[in-house]
Amino acid sequence: MSHPTPIDQRPAWKALAEHARQMRQVHLKTLFQEAATTGEPRYPRFCRRATGLTLDLSKQRFSNATFEGLMALAREADLPAAITRLLAGEKVNHSEDRPALHTALRLPADAHLEVDGQDLVPAVHETLDRMEAIVNKFHAGQWRGATGKAVSDVVNLGVGGSDLGPLMVTHALADYRPRDVHEVKVHFASTMDGSQLADYLTRLNPETTLFVLSSKSFTTIDTLSNARTARDWLLTRLVHDDHEEPSAIDRALVMRQHFIGVSASPEKMAEWGIAPANQLEFWEWVGGRYSLWGAIGLPIALVVGMANFRALLGGAHAMDCHFQEAPLEDNLPVLLGLAGIWNVNFLDIRAHSILPYDGRLEYFASYLEQLEMESNGKSVTNEGQVTAYSTCPVLWGQLGPNAQHAFYQLLHQGTQAVECDFIAPLRRYDRVEDAETRAHLKAQHRLTLANCFAQSRLLMLGDDAIEDDAPRPSHKRYRGNQPSSTVLLDRLTPHTLGALIALYEHKVFVQATVWDINPFDQWGVELGKQIAGETERILGSREGLETMDDSSQGLIQALWAAEDQASSEAKSATSTAGTTRREVS
Amino acid sequence: MSHPTPIDQRPAWKALAEHARQMRQVHLKTLFQEAATTGEPRYPRFCRRATGLTLDLSKQRFSNATFEGLMALAREADLPAAITRLLAGEKVNHSEDRPALHTALRLPADAHLEVDGQDLVPAVHETLDRMEAIVNKFHAGQWRGATGKAVSDVVNLGVGGSDLGPLMVTHALADYRPRDVHEVKVHFASTMDGSQLADYLTRLNPETTLFVLSSKSFTTIDTLSNARTARDWLLTRLVHDDHEEPSAIDRALVMRQHFIGVSASPEKMAEWGIAPANQLEFWEWVGGRYSLWGAIGLPIALVVGMANFRALLGGAHAMDCHFQEAPLEDNLPVLLGLAGIWNVNFLDIRAHSILPYDGRLEYFASYLEQLEMESNGKSVTNEGQVTAYSTCPVLWGQLGPNAQHAFYQLLHQGTQAVECDFIAPLRRYDRVEDAETRAHLKAQHRLTLANCFAQSRLLMLGDDAIEDDAPRPSHKRYRGNQPSSTVLLDRLTPHTLGALIALYEHKVFVQATVWDINPFDQWGVELGKQIAGETERILGSREGLETMDDSSQGLIQALWAAEDQASSEAKSATSTAGTTRREVS
Repeated sequence: MSHPTPIDQRPAWKALAEHARQMRQVHLKTLFQEAATTGEPRYPRFCRRATGLTLDLSKQRFSNATFEGLMALAREADLPAAITRLLAGEKVNHSEDRPALHTALRLPADAHLEVDGQDLVPAVHETLDRMEAIVNKFHAGQWRGATGKAVSDVVNLGVGGSDLGPLMVTHALADYRPRDVHEVKVHFASTMDGSQLADYLTRLNPETTLFVLSSKSFTTIDTLSNARTARDWLLTRLVHDDHEEPSAIDRALVMRQHFIGVSASPEKMAEWGIAPANQLEFWEWVGGRYSLWGAIGLPIALVVGMANFRALLGGAHAMDCHFQEAPLEDNLPVLLGLAGIWNVNFLDIRAHSILPYDGRLEYFASYLEQLEMESNGKSVTNEGQVTAYSTCPVLWGQLGPNAQHAFYQLLHQGTQAVECDFIAPLRRYDRVEDAETRAHLKAQHRLTLANCFAQSRLLMLGDDAIEDDAPRPSHKRYRGNQPSSTVLLDRLTPHTLGALIALYEHKVFVQATVWDINPFDQWGVELGKQIAGETERILGSREGLETMDDSSQGLIQALWAAEDQASSEAKSATSTAGTTRREVS
Repeated sequence: MSHPTPIDQRPAWKALAEHARQMRQVHLKTLFQEAATTGEPRYPRFCRRATGLTLDLSKQRFSNATFEGLMALAREADLPAAITRLLAGEKVNHSEDRPALHTALRLPADAHLEVDGQDLVPAVHETLDRMEAIVNKFHAGQWRGATGKAVSDVVNLGVGGSDLGPLMVTHALADYRPRDVHEVKVHFASTMDGSQLADYLTRLNPETTLFVLSSKSFTTIDTLSNARTARDWLLTRLVHDDHEEPSAIDRALVMRQHFIGVSASPEKMAEWGIAPANQLEFWEWVGGRYSLWGAIGLPIALVVGMANFRALLGGAHAMDCHFQEAPLEDNLPVLLGLAGIWNVNFLDIRAHSILPYDGRLEYFASYLEQLEMESNGKSVTNEGQVTAYSTCPVLWGQLGPNAQHAFYQLLHQGTQAVECDFIAPLRRYDRVEDAETRAHLKAQHRLTLANCFAQSRLLMLGDDAIEDDAPRPSHKRYRGNQPSSTVLLDRLTPHTLGALIALYEHKVFVQATVWDINPFDQWGVELGKQIAGETERILGSREGLETMDDSSQGLIQALWAAEDQASSEAKSATSTAGTTRREVS
């Protein structure tokens, strides 16, 4: 599996490094000019299709030799065997000694996957069936709050993987709400400071609101803080514990009708008060940032229905099969991953921008920020050596058309090289029923694609994208030579979205395999949790400050001074009661 | 003003480059240890307060010599004179031959600022007074739609600077809605593909919805596409042009009651159909990304009222005065800007993360992405020379507590050096009326600050942040040495938010001055608009494809194939009428 010699000391890497010395001098426009001269166009050479997706890498700074060199690197890193191990459920997450089995969550019901002598598929489908029963109950208007009214608002309390995936997908697939069902609005509250939740609580009706508590460990303090606030809010407003009266609403009823838990720890869910029937379990072998495919996806299923949720899984599974079966040179995740490695390790490009040209993909960049940076923001190999090479670049993004009015300036005329991913659906608005509205919206879609194609072209060619008679002053010059990938979806459907997400999941795995790091742990967040707890105790007790560095001491003393001032103001306000207060902050 | 020798060839820069050679070897924890040994703590040395903000730079990789060297660099770049020129209204935007006068938008009514022999202040306050009249009319429930009902929903149509500033501030100050006024909900639609707008149109009532069209040039195609859709929607639903009937609603009435325009071009507003009374003007000398302080801020004022909007201006003006008057070594924007330059140019740190620890600042990072990258993503000096040094880094961010569950892994254990800005209010929730809720929320706030302080400490110290008896395996090691700034707001109020935004605006100017680039133009977006238009014509006419590179040809042909398929499917659908359609996409 792992190799005694670090990857950057092995022949394929060294050959690429040598090759990169020339390629760094070659402008992308030159590569296209050469292709035109030789009659060997780049698009057919570097573009591949699978599972409803088209991946065009021809605007990467690749020559044929680069492409061959990257294939050799993949083989040197033993990528095909690594893919097999991942999908077979081997313990690829070494530091936590377990497999990473998000792909098992999307296996069809008739598949089998034995791990430690047990077939996982039945349990996966049992959970899906339980989700289906829950979703159908909501959609039939049969999930009722403590006072007997049908629940119409669901607030997902979760953060990180328990927030970003469901948020991104429900937004992307909002058009796929089934008709003729009882409508359930889904909201997301994640911030530990209570901002978002406080806002929902002023607007929602406790009688018809249910909370989904999503936390793999069920110890995430951000989520549990919000959950406690939500519970207090419901109990204060709904419980009338009058035992004389037969219709009295007690705490147990509120807990049973207004909370669902999703976690890998049934004990902790039970302890918190989640009724057994409302506990949805998932497994230790699913990482938070890979978990939207199972019970964590409940908010998605509540919005789009189980048929569409299963179509999402189907799309991801189609990509899993492609990842397993397609030869390296036609394998979309492999190609996308290797393009990134070429940029990061050989062209020294340290930033990567994610630019969807479809408003429905508004949260896709945030989702990928977690997926990629939490997975591959590592610097220690599986053998415990510090890497001498760079790993994950900084990823960030925004809807492309909006980013054109924001940070594209830096992409076009800044001093940094940046890799870009352009993502867009080919077809859209085909099924809008009103003909005039449809024509209008289709024109907006075409305009959006025109911008998408124009920008990747301009980033590649620079000034040469345009025929110009007059020379330009330097501040109107465009350097070009910014590499990009374009991912086209035939349409944005549950199926293609599933495939798109799985494409990036596997891209991350490809890169981790070459870099010889573990994409499935996240030790870089553990120490933060620990010292935040200690810091909170110091803030509260006002003891132990001397153990801190002087900057932390200064900041904490500033806080204490502010707290003291608030207390003394509160006292003087009490003594002059009746003062008007216009704000709540 | 500008200097014949590039800044990186001048003594102060060279001295810093020499000094950086040593500093690159010094870990931040060592700097703190040394400070403890010498009894000269870093916090008082590198922390400054002004206008309700505290800026702690002690966790930057600074020594006293670094600090002095940066002051020398600022003087070498003639920064004090540049600040004076900016605030005096000189033509600092050379490539467009005009001043950059966002600071004039927040001058008090009794101030004077003569530009080209004319005092600008009266015109600025006239616009504010017109905004006030409009806002008061809405808040009195007196702005009525064509059918006579009070307008309750305002949709801002704008993108870039006409979207991000108002969106960020209305979200940040949502607690400051005045009581006892007719409530107006404000929404934002920016994406050119119609996604967001289409969603609003399904939910809002045309009788009580008004659109604000915000576009400096009033030619922004994204905004005008959405505006056309909005106009069609209103006219179709509201106009009943029956001249027999005295109460008939005609087009002119709808235009007058449902549209406000904000632009620097009254002609274009009039041409589009904005009634003269509903045109709010701003000036060519205000850049889009610096424009929230005037008429573009109308959505802000509609949410928080004019008193709070004026307090926002007051906070920014306080920062302007501080920027003008404070000595370099105590000047917050100067210090923040120089810290960035030290990281980018001398420590080769190319990424900068913005991490607010307050849910109300959810859009602050997106706002800064535009402000900084569109302003300073340049590589040509004011003399037209290509810079030999880096300019603006890649900026990105997310609410800090959420990012802890997403990309902090890369900050702690990745291979990249990243500068971080931690931003938090010291006091919060003091004025929540219910005592129990207040205590609960204050605890959440304290928890949030504990996380903020703990994370900046851990990023600085690495493993050393924690006392540990056992040695850790490498995958649990934290390298530390990631530099950060902490900005504390006494509280998040209109005043301190105004100061915070102005702090970053001026930071950008400080960096641009040292880099000798123009932060006020954006030539890097012009060519994109031009070739998007050409590309759209090719997409529509299916002519001219041969002028394109082969990748663009491939992508466009894929689109045409998809369009043809859609047409043929539509035809066959018509011939088998009655098919059910569950989705609208």
